Amino acid sequence: MDAPAKTVHMNLLFDHYGQLLTDRQREIFLLYYHDDLSLGEIAENIQISRQGVHDTLQRVEQALLDLEGSLGLLAKEQRRQNTLRSLQGLLQDMLGHVEGRVPDAFLLQRLREALAAVEELMTE
Amino acid sequence: MDAPAKTVHMNLLFDHYGQLLTDRQREIFLLYYHDDLSLGEIAENIQISRQGVHDTLQRVEQALLDLEGSLGLLAKEQRRQNTLRSLQGLLQDMLGHVEGRVPDAFLLQRLREALAAVEELMTE
Repeated sequence: MDAPAKTVHMNLLFDHYGQLLTDRQREIFLLYYHDDLSLGEIAENIQISRQGVHDTLQRVEQALLDLEGSLGLLAKEQRRQNTLRSLQGLLQDMLGHVEGRVPDAFLLQRLREALAAVEELMTE
Repeated sequence: MDAPAKTVHMNLLFDHYGQLLTDRQREIFLLYYHDDLSLGEIAENIQISRQGVHDTLQRVEQALLDLEGSLGLLAKEQRRQNTLRSLQGLLQDMLGHVEGRVPDAFLLQRLREALAAVEELMTE
């Protein structure tokens, strides 16, 4: 995985599992992966050694990977989003089909409600 | 929470977070909450003290509650299932409506595919 891909992946894992880290781990993770500070800058910022920052980041990265290995929330979320996008496509096709014919208020209303439900599921 | 409700709740939490427990914790949890053995029976079964079984169960219960407090997977899952049931109801209403009128193969096929996608999301 190249560096930008790793950063994206780590940020996604953090979104799912960050609440299981300590405050200090979260702080260092965010300074590095969110604020894009260097190890040296973080070390200066929070008054620990550069090696301490490095070791904490290594441990946090491994913890996030282990959590995904155990719970697989990120993989499940990605599968769910794929299925929701297919569902959204089907509903939009139906909406286009119904709108292009004799208006059917019953179907139109329910298709719009169904699309709203899918959007809610996609953004929760 | 009465005892049966607590058992249901603990089993649901275990479904979501059991992979984060140790093998020993999982074993004791399942003997108690799944196989419905008494503390004494579990103690005999795995050759530790009754107090040891009791303490492990207490720690596991607290760990599961803490994990739900941090990640809220069970609460999210219940919200998602509610939305999916509403969506399923909307699609079934539409299917009944379309089947009771001039057959529309385009809509019928897409409604059935959409219902299959919802079922997939409900059982993942």
